[in-house]
Amino acid sequence: VSLENPIRATLFPGDGIGPEIAESVKQVFDAAEVPIEWEEHYVGDTVDPRTQSFLTWESLESVRRNGVGLKGPMATPIGKGHRSLNLTLRKELGLYANVRPCFSLPGYKTRYDDVNLVTIRENTEGEYSGLEHQVVRGVVESLKIITRQASLRVAEYAFHYAQTNGRKRVSAIHKANIMRKTDGLFLKCCREVAKKYPDITYEEVIIDNCCMMLVKNPALFDVLVMPNLYGDIISDLCAGLIGGLGLTPSCNIGEGGIALAEAVHGSAPDIAGKNLANPTALLLSSVAMLRHLKLEDKADRIHAAILSTIAEGKYRTVDLGGKASTSEFTNAVCRNL
Amino acid sequence: VSLENPIRATLFPGDGIGPEIAESVKQVFDAAEVPIEWEEHYVGDTVDPRTQSFLTWESLESVRRNGVGLKGPMATPIGKGHRSLNLTLRKELGLYANVRPCFSLPGYKTRYDDVNLVTIRENTEGEYSGLEHQVVRGVVESLKIITRQASLRVAEYAFHYAQTNGRKRVSAIHKANIMRKTDGLFLKCCREVAKKYPDITYEEVIIDNCCMMLVKNPALFDVLVMPNLYGDIISDLCAGLIGGLGLTPSCNIGEGGIALAEAVHGSAPDIAGKNLANPTALLLSSVAMLRHLKLEDKADRIHAAILSTIAEGKYRTVDLGGKASTSEFTNAVCRNL
Ligand SMILES: CC(C)[C@H](C(=O)O)[C@@H](O)C(=O)O
Ligand SMILES: CC(C)[C@H](C(=O)O)[C@@H](O)C(=O)O
Repeated sequence: VSLENPIRATLFPGDGIGPEIAESVKQVFDAAEVPIEWEEHYVGDTVDPRTQSFLTWESLESVRRNGVGLKGPMATPIGKGHRSLNLTLRKELGLYANVRPCFSLPGYKTRYDDVNLVTIRENTEGEYSGLEHQVVRGVVESLKIITRQASLRVAEYAFHYAQTNGRKRVSAIHKANIMRKTDGLFLKCCREVAKKYPDITYEEVIIDNCCMMLVKNPALFDVLVMPNLYGDIISDLCAGLIGGLGLTPSCNIGEGGIALAEAVHGSAPDIAGKNLANPTALLLSSVAMLRHLKLEDKADRIHAAILSTIAEGKYRTVDLGGKASTSEFTNAVCRNL
Repeated sequence: VSLENPIRATLFPGDGIGPEIAESVKQVFDAAEVPIEWEEHYVGDTVDPRTQSFLTWESLESVRRNGVGLKGPMATPIGKGHRSLNLTLRKELGLYANVRPCFSLPGYKTRYDDVNLVTIRENTEGEYSGLEHQVVRGVVESLKIITRQASLRVAEYAFHYAQTNGRKRVSAIHKANIMRKTDGLFLKCCREVAKKYPDITYEEVIIDNCCMMLVKNPALFDVLVMPNLYGDIISDLCAGLIGGLGLTPSCNIGEGGIALAEAVHGSAPDIAGKNLANPTALLLSSVAMLRHLKLEDKADRIHAAILSTIAEGKYRTVDLGGKASTSEFTNAVCRNL
């Protein structure tokens, strides 16, 4: 791998502020001489019958072929006959684990300064089964599905992640005191996997208690693994502790080792095209992508440059209370490389 | 109503620290000359076949007859053939709404000093249906049930509560972008009820976003109404913001106007009988019970005495970093009446 012989990666700039923050990543990668060649794909403006969504078949093929990609925010157009873009990606690429490192950014003050945890969310089943129906008028039900296969897979990923990232503890989050069978199966799978990792402390925390502990003392947590909806809730809660979704990276791990890193914030149409967006979440997600590719040197360098730019405080974007434009912030990151 | 002609109320002291903190309430009520006569009931040590739990039929009858009660922590004994005590109470007494005011306690420092909200949780259905089964080996499902009747009932309660308590805004918390039918029905019911309360602002907030906003800026919220599991999660998260379950009151509203106030923290067997427990949650719950009985004067007086005792800081229990015993704290509250 070299600049002459780069790794190909798929880039979905996405909608709204997506293209601007994707530009920021490209600029930083150029400055850091990252050996990546982007294959850019945009969301289509008609439904592709092969994906039943506005995502083109070619763009999904691109991720499958490259095995790695980066994604900006995508706003699903409203209407019938097509699927949510995010859910389509998860399903079509088998993105079974959503990994979100969440850490306090030195120099950017929130109520918490000691957050350093990773949420790992099962991303394919649970409450997201899409199975719902009306039993009789006024009575509806939805199905939560938990399988041994998906639970083992995400648990394996979580323990492997903990071990290879120097983490010491995995907490499985659940409500098995109420959902004894579904969350019970999830816990059973976590326990099985835990046995194979004697060096990692394993614990189980009930979700309501977990949320209380997180807001009281997030330093208690290290790696958290959980079913889909709990992961959705807790990862956003954790993002809130350190300043919001504009600052948190995310990476989805899929079948066959696919990795799709993504900024999980919205497309912010109100400020799109105004050079005001904060590219931090997408930049940090691109760092996660580099780590997945074992380009650790580049990842470390870019990560440090982002952090020191935020810590200096001179070039902060509007959402962080500063005045810098997207490009001013990006230039500062490049200088700090 | 007078001391000679008191209102009868059921008291479940509960397990562990329950009897000590119940004693504290009795002492404060005596000092404040509250016209309540307690009917005390303990959890049995065998399963009562009429309730299928360790709760006796007589104790449930007592709450039904009195229409009002106060409950300490109850630890469900482990074993087969009986139901969780908390769930039995909810089911048998039709406790459809769980109401938890959550406010920063002046003088007791946490990371937040501007919390003043009320969570109202649907308490009978949703993810707590108890309907779960194994589809095939390794595949289990659980059913979430949402009904029009229960959703309208809790929404009505929430708006009525907002109006009669000078609150301005009701936020319905949901995940209807994923659970379109179940959470969609819940929202539909909230919207119907909202129309009848034009003076109350109504908004809908997705649960993941809600948790993020709560940890960033809880002052954004006023009254929150939501399905069972979201209420379980969010009410504990909110308790965490102000210091934990030892400080938050809770009141369950049931069919026919029954009100069962309760401390929702655990029974803390490790410190039981040692005069160390913090009676604040049960005391504040008893205040909620008095408000339900329209004994507003007594409620205000006791509420103020609890708050000023905590604010003074001289008699704080161990959980709040102080050295006071349960009885020292209780005596201080009585003096502050
Ligand atoms: C947009 C929505 C479908 C999505 C989810 O619920 O998974 C989002 O909240 C997320 O966390 O990626
Ligand atoms: C003990 C448990 C069954 C209960 C619940 O999940 O409702 C508790 O967390 C609560 O909030 O009262």
